[in-house]
Amino acid sequence: MIKWTTSTMLRCLSCKEEYGSDNAGTCKDCYEEASETEEELKREIEDLKAKIAFLRFWSPLEHHNFLQLGSPSFTDVVLVASDEHPANPVSFPAHKAVLTCRSPVFKAMLETDMEERLSGIIKISDISNDTLRCFVDYLYTAEACLDEQMARDLLVLAEKYEVKYLKAHCEKFLVSKLNWDNLVTNFGLAQQHNAKILLDASLSMITDNMSKFTKTPEYAHLVEKDPRLVVEIFEAYLSKAVNTAAKKD
Amino acid sequence: MIKWTTSTMLRCLSCKEEYGSDNAGTCKDCYEEASETEEELKREIEDLKAKIAFLRFWSPLEHHNFLQLGSPSFTDVVLVASDEHPANPVSFPAHKAVLTCRSPVFKAMLETDMEERLSGIIKISDISNDTLRCFVDYLYTAEACLDEQMARDLLVLAEKYEVKYLKAHCEKFLVSKLNWDNLVTNFGLAQQHNAKILLDASLSMITDNMSKFTKTPEYAHLVEKDPRLVVEIFEAYLSKAVNTAAKKD
Repeated sequence: MIKWTTSTMLRCLSCKEEYGSDNAGTCKDCYEEASETEEELKREIEDLKAKIAFLRFWSPLEHHNFLQLGSPSFTDVVLVASDEHPANPVSFPAHKAVLTCRSPVFKAMLETDMEERLSGIIKISDISNDTLRCFVDYLYTAEACLDEQMARDLLVLAEKYEVKYLKAHCEKFLVSKLNWDNLVTNFGLAQQHNAKILLDASLSMITDNMSKFTKTPEYAHLVEKDPRLVVEIFEAYLSKAVNTAAKKD
Repeated sequence: MIKWTTSTMLRCLSCKEEYGSDNAGTCKDCYEEASETEEELKREIEDLKAKIAFLRFWSPLEHHNFLQLGSPSFTDVVLVASDEHPANPVSFPAHKAVLTCRSPVFKAMLETDMEERLSGIIKISDISNDTLRCFVDYLYTAEACLDEQMARDLLVLAEKYEVKYLKAHCEKFLVSKLNWDNLVTNFGLAQQHNAKILLDASLSMITDNMSKFTKTPEYAHLVEKDPRLVVEIFEAYLSKAVNTAAKKD
């Protein structure tokens, strides 16, 4: 049997408080090793951030100011949101080299004799000027100032142009904002655009609260509008219930 | 007084060994917090690496294969090592947009009506084809397969074209390889090209072994060839000696 008295308490090197046997963490060697590892990881993060700063093109604002000021920017293609009101056309100049490097779809478009290569104009349907600006900026900088609607719009665009990294970025953002109000919308979006990260997270949130979910107006609406999706939800719920039961046995 | 017997030893959660009061590291809470921090840092590193993969252009080999195969690569400028033997001219195609983004010197060259802008040819003197290939690759990928000579050549080029990130990369590589044989060469290079990281490291290695250093043939050669540099070394040595003495008082 171990008997502890106050005189046998140890002092934690990190928080400086005393602790006893029940609260034993690490020995000194392991503590020092862990501190070193943490320092190394932080240095690696600084190095990676510096590399990103080097590889990134102009920041969004700089980029657009730069182009507006008429400085030579060596762009050789423009992107246009084709459904925007014709009274308000905005062309977003870009570089073929950047577009082909970021998206296999742009690559196919610009490396073969498709209309876009010959005209130097890429028309993008079903999006606003704001979304297109944000999309182009992301291709250059790997950064976007997202809200939920922008994340959904960019997810659709990223799926269409196969920009996997942006798609994952939007999915992770939407997962971080997932709540009872946007759950069905995000689940439907994820389903429609093969967004696996968002799909798993939203489906898990639904099946964890199945009986609450089936009492919502969104559920009633979904049964009406898209019963197949409801079937998929129930299948996932069943599968989870079976797994849970199997674990208990 | 604390008395320890084997029965009062604690078990380290990390290495699973027992430890006593002298070897106390952290309490359990701090251990768990540190583990979580480490996991978070590792996740951040993964995220940053994915961002780098997205922002990077073609890898060196792909890049050159790509260009050799005659696929459209939308390049609009070539770089040439101007001193290479004329029987062996190699042009390295590149994009003005990438060069201006990576180097203020290329930017000034290509955005004003200098010869290079008009001709679309940038001649680079005093380097080999191999060094130029490595330099261009680095501007696209932020990666280089370095040996000591290549690191020195690229450091000079990075200084000339103000590619700070590459310069720091070469300096860090040379610091990691610093030894008694290459010390004077690297110190001289650092001195000549304002390479502060390499300068500090090599000067520190010299002044730590001053009496050994003054007995080497390199020292004798340096006194002959560049006595000002020797004066700088002695000044640094004196300054260190004064500081050490002040700390002791």
